[in-house]
Amino acid sequence: MIIVLKPGTQDADIEDVCRRIEGLGLRAHVSRGEQRTVIGAIGDDRFKARLQALEALECVESMVPILQPFKLASRDVRATDTIVEVDGVRIGGPYLAVMAGPCSVESQEQLRTIAEGVKAAGAHILRGGAFKPRTSPYAFQGLEEEGLRLLAAARKETGLPVVTEVLEPDKVGVVAEYADILQIGARNTQNFSLLKEVGQCGKPVLLKRGMATTIKEFLLSAEYILAGGNPNVILCERGIRTFETTTRFTLDLNAVPVIKKLSHLPVVVDPSHGTGHWEYVAPMAKAGLACGADGLMIEVHHRPAEALSDGPQSLKPDKFARLMGELRVLAQAIGRLL
Amino acid sequence: MIIVLKPGTQDADIEDVCRRIEGLGLRAHVSRGEQRTVIGAIGDDRFKARLQALEALECVESMVPILQPFKLASRDVRATDTIVEVDGVRIGGPYLAVMAGPCSVESQEQLRTIAEGVKAAGAHILRGGAFKPRTSPYAFQGLEEEGLRLLAAARKETGLPVVTEVLEPDKVGVVAEYADILQIGARNTQNFSLLKEVGQCGKPVLLKRGMATTIKEFLLSAEYILAGGNPNVILCERGIRTFETTTRFTLDLNAVPVIKKLSHLPVVVDPSHGTGHWEYVAPMAKAGLACGADGLMIEVHHRPAEALSDGPQSLKPDKFARLMGELRVLAQAIGRLL
Amino acid sequence: MIIVLKPGTQDADIEDVCRRIEGLGLRAHVSRGEQRTVIGAIGDDRFKARLQALEALECVESMVPILQPFKLASRDVRATDTIVEVDGVRIGGPYLAVMAGPCSVESQEQLRTIAEGVKAAGAHILRGGAFKPRTSPYAFQGLEEEGLRLLAAARKETGLPVVTEVLEPDKVGVVAEYADILQIGARNTQNFSLLKEVGQCGKPVLLKRGMATTIKEFLLSAEYILAGGNPNVILCERGIRTFETTTRFTLDLNAVPVIKKLSHLPVVVDPSHGTGHWEYVAPMAKAGLACGADGLMIEVHHRPAEALSDGPQSLKPDKFARLMGELRVLAQAIGRLL
Amino acid sequence: MIIVLKPGTQDADIEDVCRRIEGLGLRAHVSRGEQRTVIGAIGDDRFKARLQALEALECVESMVPILQPFKLASRDVRATDTIVEVDGVRIGGPYLAVMAGPCSVESQEQLRTIAEGVKAAGAHILRGGAFKPRTSPYAFQGLEEEGLRLLAAARKETGLPVVTEVLEPDKVGVVAEYADILQIGARNTQNFSLLKEVGQCGKPVLLKRGMATTIKEFLLSAEYILAGGNPNVILCERGIRTFETTTRFTLDLNAVPVIKKLSHLPVVVDPSHGTGHWEYVAPMAKAGLACGADGLMIEVHHRPAEALSDGPQSLKPDKFARLMGELRVLAQAIGRLL
Repeated sequence: MIIVLKPGTQDADIEDVCRRIEGLGLRAHVSRGEQRTVIGAIGDDRFKARLQALEALECVESMVPILQPFKLASRDVRATDTIVEVDGVRIGGPYLAVMAGPCSVESQEQLRTIAEGVKAAGAHILRGGAFKPRTSPYAFQGLEEEGLRLLAAARKETGLPVVTEVLEPDKVGVVAEYADILQIGARNTQNFSLLKEVGQCGKPVLLKRGMATTIKEFLLSAEYILAGGNPNVILCERGIRTFETTTRFTLDLNAVPVIKKLSHLPVVVDPSHGTGHWEYVAPMAKAGLACGADGLMIEVHHRPAEALSDGPQSLKPDKFARLMGELRVLAQAIGRLL
Repeated sequence: MIIVLKPGTQDADIEDVCRRIEGLGLRAHVSRGEQRTVIGAIGDDRFKARLQALEALECVESMVPILQPFKLASRDVRATDTIVEVDGVRIGGPYLAVMAGPCSVESQEQLRTIAEGVKAAGAHILRGGAFKPRTSPYAFQGLEEEGLRLLAAARKETGLPVVTEVLEPDKVGVVAEYADILQIGARNTQNFSLLKEVGQCGKPVLLKRGMATTIKEFLLSAEYILAGGNPNVILCERGIRTFETTTRFTLDLNAVPVIKKLSHLPVVVDPSHGTGHWEYVAPMAKAGLACGADGLMIEVHHRPAEALSDGPQSLKPDKFARLMGELRVLAQAIGRLL
Repeated sequence: MIIVLKPGTQDADIEDVCRRIEGLGLRAHVSRGEQRTVIGAIGDDRFKARLQALEALECVESMVPILQPFKLASRDVRATDTIVEVDGVRIGGPYLAVMAGPCSVESQEQLRTIAEGVKAAGAHILRGGAFKPRTSPYAFQGLEEEGLRLLAAARKETGLPVVTEVLEPDKVGVVAEYADILQIGARNTQNFSLLKEVGQCGKPVLLKRGMATTIKEFLLSAEYILAGGNPNVILCERGIRTFETTTRFTLDLNAVPVIKKLSHLPVVVDPSHGTGHWEYVAPMAKAGLACGADGLMIEVHHRPAEALSDGPQSLKPDKFARLMGELRVLAQAIGRLL
Repeated sequence: MIIVLKPGTQDADIEDVCRRIEGLGLRAHVSRGEQRTVIGAIGDDRFKARLQALEALECVESMVPILQPFKLASRDVRATDTIVEVDGVRIGGPYLAVMAGPCSVESQEQLRTIAEGVKAAGAHILRGGAFKPRTSPYAFQGLEEEGLRLLAAARKETGLPVVTEVLEPDKVGVVAEYADILQIGARNTQNFSLLKEVGQCGKPVLLKRGMATTIKEFLLSAEYILAGGNPNVILCERGIRTFETTTRFTLDLNAVPVIKKLSHLPVVVDPSHGTGHWEYVAPMAKAGLACGADGLMIEVHHRPAEALSDGPQSLKPDKFARLMGELRVLAQAIGRLL
């Protein structure tokens, strides 16, 4: 951490800052420039969150972090790519995986039809929501545990592992019973109670980036799960909030190479939420792979105009199958295994 | 809802859209213009979330909502201002209230010192966090239940009602035992499980706006609590995420008159989180009252450079007391009761 | 345009709104719903900007546009892709083009070295700035006309057409004398005087999206040029301002398929400005092509650590050559001609 | 400037960075920490824009500026508030000023009516646009020089000094002939050619913040004018682009105390553009003064539903007069002179 002092700071104040830094177990290193005096707090300050409070001192102009605030998620700790394996499906390193299925599980017939469609098209993992976070209290809230049972049945029939969202800490147990991967949704990226709980669940976690979460905060949320003892975290870029309104969110694909540089964890892209319109899903799915993502999460529905949620952004099974064909050609061109 | 069709849409498709609208219990009204045909779906579509799925039809160009998506929170249902009363303190209508105290409860001595300070300065409600949502897993996570007990003790000593944050649905009960107002923080504005739970807790709720929550989504989150049977919701603007980096967040004071126009619920402003720096708290507190807010939430700490959280944005008690004096003059100038 | 009236609006006010609509040469169509009365203003309102003023009436709750505000730039007017041709290089339809070169023209030796490098690697067009818009008045402001002459010399030596930025309306003439394509930079996307001038310059225009320009506004800026009589407009997505700070801007690749749907104009992507760091240029260049862009604009410098501008985001010639090889494989996989 | 090196950087590379720093006339100061080596570049780097290019070196992880990039605009150079005086009206220090009038000058009758109205209500300066930057090429583009003559006539009749916008460098001369203050609009905040020109015009300049301009960039734009020799710059916060859509822009009032801390220049607030709706103008005007702004710019029109631009955000003269009364009471409460 670099602490920049206001011009004209007295020696007594400089010594006070140094004493406080040393009181936290770090070393202080003073550098007096022409315009400003700066003090370096040397040591691993990631575990010294209290250091930040020094900004409250009247003599401090600003504080500048030098280290990334996360550790277990960083390349500093692990240089090689983490590969998450789920029931024979590998994500990360050279391996690409596609997760597909309906936004919400609506009925046995609906889930079975879609699951068979995405399996036939070559998807590797089945997605489907049983507990649904909905902006309006008047919207369909999901089939809940019945939905989990339908997902387990679909897994049995298709052989596809299942990813589904968990909304509350005390539902982690039951979701982990049925699901192969637990999904943390974009509204819960900083639900730290939930992150602590899935850090202990023993199953891989798909962590979505919140719509206003910076990449550093996103990796700090992953750090919660890793610090809980669960190394199997898959990150998911799914669009951030910006001023642009022709799309539901702005898919931040820059985040893919940035995360690849900072972290060893695999990253997948969700072009369905990232655009909000089925017509834009195929081009953005391709862009996701082209910039280095390790997989995709895509919403598919056989009757989108009757879907209980996210119909406008769902691909029909035939369009999804065509996209999978194009993705296989693309994967080969970029030297990845799909 | 207005459904805009693509140019060249066939009559059969128009009829199909109308049939689907009527199948949801609404009336369809077709208007053929020179450039586009539009279909109005007439009726109260707030309870017809499935209507949105029609956007998935290939003949649909766009869909435009006419009604606000919330109802109980809107002025359509209740024209006069809601006044929330907590232990003799009134918020809303002509009444202003100031909530002040430390970000985190750290110890009995710390809380007592600060509570006495803000009481002496004229604050109406004591704030203090026992369960803390922290971006980093390595930061202080709060005193938890011990913090709740200290808050209850401080209430006894000062007579000030207490507001404190609840993070998980299954902690609502215990927090409601100790607190007078339950706070939902900015990272939980769309934690719908938690909103449903506090909708049933029987205590007033202070609902903070998320950093990427639109005003309409914010009022839909309030709608969850109102729909659960709890009419005592206080909204809180605390800053949104933008590109500007000299402040921690961008305090969106426009939201105050906008919410006042759309909703009957009281609104308070949090200039501490909304700026992130103690030097900006006093001017933005005044601006908050000047644009019509019903109160303020302000972080106060007697030793901010040693605070376990949010030191840089905490006012010292003497600065807080001076601000309270200025606010009293301001309140009189704008005809409000502080 | 749909005009939504406040609940309880009187008949006299409804008639007044209708009269005003008809006074502008449009037809008024009243639809009385249970919750709201809405009035449709029917006709081509793109040329009726005054219509918007009706929102000032006290009885009006909101106004909702139905048509896109641009016309010449839209697919309504021209369904097939525009292909811009510059000295044998085609951009749009099946044709991809890569524009590459230094941010600023710094010297004859510098420009020649880089121009030869990008030519050898297979670039189609040479970029280079002679007039430079710089955030700080203390930064290098460009070689100005001398820079234009060096660009013309480089064109002669390499055979590559040249694209360069113009900053002021009264410099359009001189820039058009030397350049093959005139670039309008991101800070001038809404410099309407400049747009009007290049609408008359007789040369193709590369129009960059502003950092806070919505896609609709972007297409309205293109409309200025088209309405001036210049059909050869190439759009360029180069990143927008968001809260994310690990990259200089957030490259909005969603914009590529959105623009392709709304407009017939070609779109290129600038991954150099869109990321701000050379390490992210290659992955985002590939993503740009994969989602359907018609070309790329990439900054190249042989000594980036000594560049007078944008060094950190410039590729060295050997890295650029490697990227071009990868792009050729990718283009083939997606069926485009590079 | 602090240069952070990647872990494992070799001594030869460290020396290379130091040599480059010294080559630019700065001193290099190396500090080797446990996790990272950092190099301080000591000296006034505001005039060393080339320093930034070092980020292109492969051994550099990041670069962190210590000084603000502007100088003449900063409190470092001038601690006391600048007071701009225009024809007897003072802005800054203790003095508040209100600028009011129509968005566009439309006719002699229109301007005279409104000018008399705002004068009677107590406005200090008359605003009105003659050259209009319009998003659509089909919208009214202003009366141009005829508008300037009407403004001069209105000044003669009312005695109010006049502020009006200039759009192009080669129009600065003619606008300066007629106007008392030259306005640079939000779309031209980074039109550096225009900034250089008004730096030499000999009249005060009102510089609006762009909708995606950070406060630091805003002060760098002011620096262009100051560096040109013109000390009379008035800054104007008028709203930034965010995800919120119930208002036209998000008025960033945080910017007022932030600019007051960083700079000695006066700041005014434009609640008309900052909200986009006349109903929100009065509350946000009050908030602007309450947080320390030195004045306001407010759009007034006697027939807003017929205005050729910005009707929806224009106050009628009677509402403006009522607001002026409230502002006088408020100014007294906060100890300012209106």
